[in-house]
Amino acid sequence: MRPGFDSSQGPGGSRLPDDEETPNMASESGKLWGGRFVGAVDPIMEKFNSSITYDRQLWEVDVQGSKAYSRGLEKAGLLTKAEMDQIHRGLDKVAEEWAQGTFKLNPNDEDIHTANERRLKELIGETAGKLHTGRSRNDQVVTDLRLWMRQNCSALSGLLRELIRTMVDRAEAERDILFPGYTHLQRAQPIRWSHWILSHAVALTRDSERLLEVQKRINVLPLGSGAIAGNPLGVDRELLRTELKFGAITVNSMDATSERDFVAEFLFWASLCMTHLSRMAEDLILYGTKEFSFVQLSDAYSTGSSLMPQKKNPDSLELIRSKAGRVFGRCAGLLMTLKGLPSTYNKDLQEDKEAVFEVSDTMSAVLQVATGVISTLQIHRENMVRALSPDMLATDLAYYLVRKGMPFRQAHEASGKAVFMAETKGVALNQLSLKELQTISHLFSSDVSQVWDYGHSVEQYAALGGTARSSVDWQIGQVRALLRAQQA
Amino acid sequence: MRPGFDSSQGPGGSRLPDDEETPNMASESGKLWGGRFVGAVDPIMEKFNSSITYDRQLWEVDVQGSKAYSRGLEKAGLLTKAEMDQIHRGLDKVAEEWAQGTFKLNPNDEDIHTANERRLKELIGETAGKLHTGRSRNDQVVTDLRLWMRQNCSALSGLLRELIRTMVDRAEAERDILFPGYTHLQRAQPIRWSHWILSHAVALTRDSERLLEVQKRINVLPLGSGAIAGNPLGVDRELLRTELKFGAITVNSMDATSERDFVAEFLFWASLCMTHLSRMAEDLILYGTKEFSFVQLSDAYSTGSSLMPQKKNPDSLELIRSKAGRVFGRCAGLLMTLKGLPSTYNKDLQEDKEAVFEVSDTMSAVLQVATGVISTLQIHRENMVRALSPDMLATDLAYYLVRKGMPFRQAHEASGKAVFMAETKGVALNQLSLKELQTISHLFSSDVSQVWDYGHSVEQYAALGGTARSSVDWQIGQVRALLRAQQA
Amino acid sequence: MRPGFDSSQGPGGSRLPDDEETPNMASESGKLWGGRFVGAVDPIMEKFNSSITYDRQLWEVDVQGSKAYSRGLEKAGLLTKAEMDQIHRGLDKVAEEWAQGTFKLNPNDEDIHTANERRLKELIGETAGKLHTGRSRNDQVVTDLRLWMRQNCSALSGLLRELIRTMVDRAEAERDILFPGYTHLQRAQPIRWSHWILSHAVALTRDSERLLEVQKRINVLPLGSGAIAGNPLGVDRELLRTELKFGAITVNSMDATSERDFVAEFLFWASLCMTHLSRMAEDLILYGTKEFSFVQLSDAYSTGSSLMPQKKNPDSLELIRSKAGRVFGRCAGLLMTLKGLPSTYNKDLQEDKEAVFEVSDTMSAVLQVATGVISTLQIHRENMVRALSPDMLATDLAYYLVRKGMPFRQAHEASGKAVFMAETKGVALNQLSLKELQTISHLFSSDVSQVWDYGHSVEQYAALGGTARSSVDWQIGQVRALLRAQQA
Amino acid sequence: MRPGFDSSQGPGGSRLPDDEETPNMASESGKLWGGRFVGAVDPIMEKFNSSITYDRQLWEVDVQGSKAYSRGLEKAGLLTKAEMDQIHRGLDKVAEEWAQGTFKLNPNDEDIHTANERRLKELIGETAGKLHTGRSRNDQVVTDLRLWMRQNCSALSGLLRELIRTMVDRAEAERDILFPGYTHLQRAQPIRWSHWILSHAVALTRDSERLLEVQKRINVLPLGSGAIAGNPLGVDRELLRTELKFGAITVNSMDATSERDFVAEFLFWASLCMTHLSRMAEDLILYGTKEFSFVQLSDAYSTGSSLMPQKKNPDSLELIRSKAGRVFGRCAGLLMTLKGLPSTYNKDLQEDKEAVFEVSDTMSAVLQVATGVISTLQIHRENMVRALSPDMLATDLAYYLVRKGMPFRQAHEASGKAVFMAETKGVALNQLSLKELQTISHLFSSDVSQVWDYGHSVEQYAALGGTARSSVDWQIGQVRALLRAQQA
Repeated sequence: MRPGFDSSQGPGGSRLPDDEETPNMASESGKLWGGRFVGAVDPIMEKFNSSITYDRQLWEVDVQGSKAYSRGLEKAGLLTKAEMDQIHRGLDKVAEEWAQGTFKLNPNDEDIHTANERRLKELIGETAGKLHTGRSRNDQVVTDLRLWMRQNCSALSGLLRELIRTMVDRAEAERDILFPGYTHLQRAQPIRWSHWILSHAVALTRDSERLLEVQKRINVLPLGSGAIAGNPLGVDRELLRTELKFGAITVNSMDATSERDFVAEFLFWASLCMTHLSRMAEDLILYGTKEFSFVQLSDAYSTGSSLMPQKKNPDSLELIRSKAGRVFGRCAGLLMTLKGLPSTYNKDLQEDKEAVFEVSDTMSAVLQVATGVISTLQIHRENMVRALSPDMLATDLAYYLVRKGMPFRQAHEASGKAVFMAETKGVALNQLSLKELQTISHLFSSDVSQVWDYGHSVEQYAALGGTARSSVDWQIGQVRALLRAQQA
Repeated sequence: MRPGFDSSQGPGGSRLPDDEETPNMASESGKLWGGRFVGAVDPIMEKFNSSITYDRQLWEVDVQGSKAYSRGLEKAGLLTKAEMDQIHRGLDKVAEEWAQGTFKLNPNDEDIHTANERRLKELIGETAGKLHTGRSRNDQVVTDLRLWMRQNCSALSGLLRELIRTMVDRAEAERDILFPGYTHLQRAQPIRWSHWILSHAVALTRDSERLLEVQKRINVLPLGSGAIAGNPLGVDRELLRTELKFGAITVNSMDATSERDFVAEFLFWASLCMTHLSRMAEDLILYGTKEFSFVQLSDAYSTGSSLMPQKKNPDSLELIRSKAGRVFGRCAGLLMTLKGLPSTYNKDLQEDKEAVFEVSDTMSAVLQVATGVISTLQIHRENMVRALSPDMLATDLAYYLVRKGMPFRQAHEASGKAVFMAETKGVALNQLSLKELQTISHLFSSDVSQVWDYGHSVEQYAALGGTARSSVDWQIGQVRALLRAQQA
Repeated sequence: MRPGFDSSQGPGGSRLPDDEETPNMASESGKLWGGRFVGAVDPIMEKFNSSITYDRQLWEVDVQGSKAYSRGLEKAGLLTKAEMDQIHRGLDKVAEEWAQGTFKLNPNDEDIHTANERRLKELIGETAGKLHTGRSRNDQVVTDLRLWMRQNCSALSGLLRELIRTMVDRAEAERDILFPGYTHLQRAQPIRWSHWILSHAVALTRDSERLLEVQKRINVLPLGSGAIAGNPLGVDRELLRTELKFGAITVNSMDATSERDFVAEFLFWASLCMTHLSRMAEDLILYGTKEFSFVQLSDAYSTGSSLMPQKKNPDSLELIRSKAGRVFGRCAGLLMTLKGLPSTYNKDLQEDKEAVFEVSDTMSAVLQVATGVISTLQIHRENMVRALSPDMLATDLAYYLVRKGMPFRQAHEASGKAVFMAETKGVALNQLSLKELQTISHLFSSDVSQVWDYGHSVEQYAALGGTARSSVDWQIGQVRALLRAQQA
Repeated sequence: MRPGFDSSQGPGGSRLPDDEETPNMASESGKLWGGRFVGAVDPIMEKFNSSITYDRQLWEVDVQGSKAYSRGLEKAGLLTKAEMDQIHRGLDKVAEEWAQGTFKLNPNDEDIHTANERRLKELIGETAGKLHTGRSRNDQVVTDLRLWMRQNCSALSGLLRELIRTMVDRAEAERDILFPGYTHLQRAQPIRWSHWILSHAVALTRDSERLLEVQKRINVLPLGSGAIAGNPLGVDRELLRTELKFGAITVNSMDATSERDFVAEFLFWASLCMTHLSRMAEDLILYGTKEFSFVQLSDAYSTGSSLMPQKKNPDSLELIRSKAGRVFGRCAGLLMTLKGLPSTYNKDLQEDKEAVFEVSDTMSAVLQVATGVISTLQIHRENMVRALSPDMLATDLAYYLVRKGMPFRQAHEASGKAVFMAETKGVALNQLSLKELQTISHLFSSDVSQVWDYGHSVEQYAALGGTARSSVDWQIGQVRALLRAQQA
């Protein structure tokens, strides 16, 4: 039951059918068709319909929105200054009760808007009944949600940048550590450990950029759109916008009350960000296996086994990886709910809030745990270097030939032959003698020995974005500059 | 932190690195990389890792499982009869505390299994430490979940059949009411209102059948699989099965502890069932518009508007429609979580329970609300009949010609010409004179008049599955028989 | 098999195991484990692995990318000017063959990159082998895809703006037509038909804005990232960027070759846009039913029935509605594929292209069909007006009282009583006498009669975003200005 | 345009509006609203609407269905025996043309049903026009799809069982090979390699069981349901069922023509099966890394690198893993398309076929490639054994104490202390002296030495489902028995 509408008496509660036909009496009594007894009220329906268990989180923004709206009503001459002040004092008291945990819900408080207005009336009397003038639940709820998300996304933005910053700090400090770069999970080429860290940090900068765009679209005010047709009482929406510090106002009242793009965008933002974190978690889980032994999680982010005393499991990383599914599930759910919905407000839209709240909480925890993991992770640099092997320089061997003038395709083939020769002889690639190499190509000469130096190898990759020291430094500078720009 | 494993001291808490390398000291202190300070324990990680806020729902089945397992240990000679009895009494006490709401959680109770075992130890002392012998959290949790779902799916099965029964009862009582059948939302042919009801009931019988199949696969016992390798202490899994009344035991311990097919199947079952209900809800929302005016929701399932006094909105049906998205979102989320996961238990699997609990609750509410809606829905039979129009008999007009020997394609074309002629003349199709019809085909004769009777029309559709009275009765019989069979 | 790598001979084809262990001979022959016979090549695997059937669409951008890359090689001194010119001429010939449909694929052309390079070699000889120097398939394919999408998204942007423009033109021309605004599919308040059109147009402007953001992130050049470590041969990536007219270069080579954010973003962009169009389609399908009779689709966008001669079905709109599912399915599929993937290039990423191609085609068709539907839709304005009824003015009646000083909550209740009174008496709301109204509130006086004018009603909603003529004009101006800005 | 319905003339093509209102002339000409010019036919709409590019795959089943239906018409007296024979001969000729690749499509053949009937008419003349009597495209298309899927699922069932059989054969042959079992990707306990193989095989047996259930629900005949109301001409649906060898007939004609449960179920079946295969692929990719070195893919299922000569990548496994996303995307797409759809046939349902065809093809390839991979995989058994380490026996050490009477929780702690002691001393767990162990518990005695035998360890896990030889044999027997039962 929506607020201010008492179904037990009055028009709504005992409506006649729309025409003069005799309604089907059997179905009225509910007897013929069996099922549970249904009187005026079905408690399961009441609970099904109610949103107060979760939308109570909106208490603060609901008060904010109402205060701004009453100011709009005052400017429009629909409230006196005294009435407005009375409403503001009442709303401040409502907020205080919530903040102190003394707000008492009534069984009829089906949502936070009803609850707050009901309490306001108890506190200040009939003047409370003027607050909702020209406003509908439809524009009220979406205003509240935008206010809540604006605040929350700002916090998430901060947490995300904190994670990126931690990664960049670490990358800067550890940029002289080499280890294998993998493609297809097969050892590919030697790279800097910091190059790996930065690969994930750079991905997250895109999430950070995207979140700013979502925030921009969240920051648009729908208040003053009414239920569907707009506001008929001369409320100045630009005033409301200024009061609530929104960047813009919505353009069309029907769209404003029923579009949930900003929710869908936020859920997708979170899904893509989680996809990135799931990939980083996967890498770290692998690097933390006995077989790789590149990293070791801090105890604070590991868990023991109830059965196996020797085990330490990367639960933090596994949970991060798994949340990618949960978060995307919420995105999928919302889009399916929206699909094919008739335009304007339908109750289906009530599904938006739990998705937002759950995903916000998840993202907040995930970003902080990821920051903790990265900032406390131990690395085993000797193992990292030990995992490099001469065959990972086969590409460099081909480039050696390229620099001597051989077309790459031939050089690639020649290098492949060297790999094969080494395997056949059961030796490492760098243990082939110059003579042996020269059976493959006469371009090999004694300077081929410098190919076998891993430090020399990575320094070749000096083009922007590569793994050479200079390029890694450039990357660090790029990300830091971006963080500074996004902060501003 | 898993139970029985104190990280602040002892082996797990201060593990050295796996090899003799100097660990990276900077990362140890957490200072270099910034981020929040991280000591031995990160409270956000603790909360992130904990499942007690939701898996406490498993308290009863956890006790059941532990009682059965201790019986298995006793048979295997790992517990004396006296110890087993002591454990049983302790567990009964634990259950009693939960049932009475007096169970007190400790901050360290990260999950229901830890909580129950911790409490058992407080109640009966060291013997409690024997309960987990040969058992792992991995087989324990999945046993608990299966027990919980078995019970819950059985309840959902009952609610679903109750809904179907209500629909069939209603179909039986109202089978003489005709109204338009639509395809593409365009009026197509006259049908019985009961034919429409049964179309949705029949869809739900498939859900009912599928749920029984899911229940069959839930009803398989994993207990005795340990963490991965199985049970090494001679526990008789067939005994456990009998104790817990499962239909079968799992075949492979690695699979048993990490497969969540039964969860995925359940979530998909719910998704498909919700898709059906969303389609029924959509129909009823349309039929309840002013424009259709075929049905009227009971006040118990409608809601008024905070702004528009004249409105009564079909919130119950909109919520049902919307939940299809939410439920499917959970299914999508779980499958994404499972995708590409290394085999055996990974912490990612912890995502299973919230999905199951939420979807179970949703389905329970949806099925009951749908039953309430159907059993109290008023229909406006005069409006239904009034919505029939002669052009909906154009197909019957073609069949008239077919029965006179004209090939269907020609008859279809001839009937189309009649429709066009009527439109051109601005009259209803049945107002074309015989003479006019005969300009289209000489096969028309005076008996064409019987085509225009709606009752006659529906009675033609007497093939099984059609809208003739006999066929509708047959359908009712079929569905009732199926319900009886499924009940058994 | 990747290009330039002949598995039948040489290193790759007959590699020995990594260590000296005796490999399992039985599995080598494939006999022990049964299954199909497997020799050196499994044709099903070849087909499974091949992408040429779809990535041939990239032929043109692949040539573009290779031309730019060869210029980079020339500047780096790895190609002479003559060699570069030879390569350019060869590539132009390749492109010409594709354009004229004379390009002949070989069975070994597993993808477009292989095919083009193979053909280049046939045309110009060994110099072709220099083209791939320092380049990897990993940076090549993602460069090609970005080039393709850049072009394609630009076309989609144009089609989307064309649709919006058509809607705004129509809104401008028909802004004096009134009809019922619905919430919950129940008649709510009178609105302008143009207000409805604009509600959908405004939603689409957000899609248009988002697409520009996606385009910005597509327009970043990965070429010069190699397989993982970067480019070791001094290729100037800024030169490549200028050559290919990208807005920026990627920052990290590992990320650059394996991130598919721009694909995921594009698929989500399409999903959300389709959600909007599915809602518009749903509205129009409803408005086109016999029951609503507000609009009629042009024959060009309708289809007849194979059985029912009188039917005309809104197939175009149903297809648009349905494609929301398909498009989102591709988005869901890609995200699931990405979830938990180890970093850098894995073959899993090959899934990106079919998704992009299919969704691009779908969006192109949908946007054009939607434009066609809107631009040819007939409306029945008399039916629209006829559907307005006095009870839709109940809110205005409450506002009447509000303007006389009654608090809104009381006014809402008073108006509800009037609705109830009218229903009880079996008259329309506007047929209650002044005397009757005054039994509800003494604030009613003779000027209440102006409430019953629909034109007067809509003109009240003059706040920005509302349905008053001035506000509708303002909306049109806003959208037009936005289109102009986006065009630029 | 549906078959037999020529839009250029006749009723459908030039329908007048439903009422006498003046239609909006401006929109008629399409000029005012801009957009592309739209005449009687929009070629983009035609292509958008057409399904012949993919549903031509149904040619054979469409002929089958039509032959059976004509027999039904003959029995009902609507065709003479001669006419039926003529139709059969014509249809056989149509099928022959398709089989031989000589069937020529017309531009107007929008779907396979239209094409086949058009061709039949060309071949046999007017009698062809009798074939569609009482049938609708709605029941025809869904009958065809069920026939196609029945055949195809049967093939997939066979391929799936072939894969399982290959795995079981391999498990049987290699059951004496030990290697580490992992949980959380951390080494957990020694297990048999065959135990791992069987863990995946057992998962697949559930897919096999589920597919049989899906097949059962596919195998239900909708033919004779017409467009919505049923069949009015006395066609005997039981006869049709027998003709087409279906297991049952559908119960309600409205449901029969518009439910796509069997499609959704099939897509979900494939999604869950792919999830299993993605997990197996993930394991094998890991086991095939240099770091694990347990397995080596056959060259037939690997691919080289265009840049790095030393690389061999597990493309087959990566593709299998990735397809889990694609397949699930189709499932998600269909469910979203179905959500909230009005009941009975809507054009939205046309989305079903491409999903089915693509997923069938994918599953067929994946199952065969997986069989090839498993049957040709080399294993490095020495590496497998070498990866076992004494700390993996810590749980067994605890069990040793349990067998001596210590409660498990204490034993777990004692074993943990031993692990810690060994780490502190820098020795392997089994190198602690008896004296050292006795400082932890006096229950340790000389027989503790047998704990350190891996073969002894696995043999302890003799409970059903465990990794002992007897239990592995039991598992093999169970799976083989299941395969035999499913085959039957």
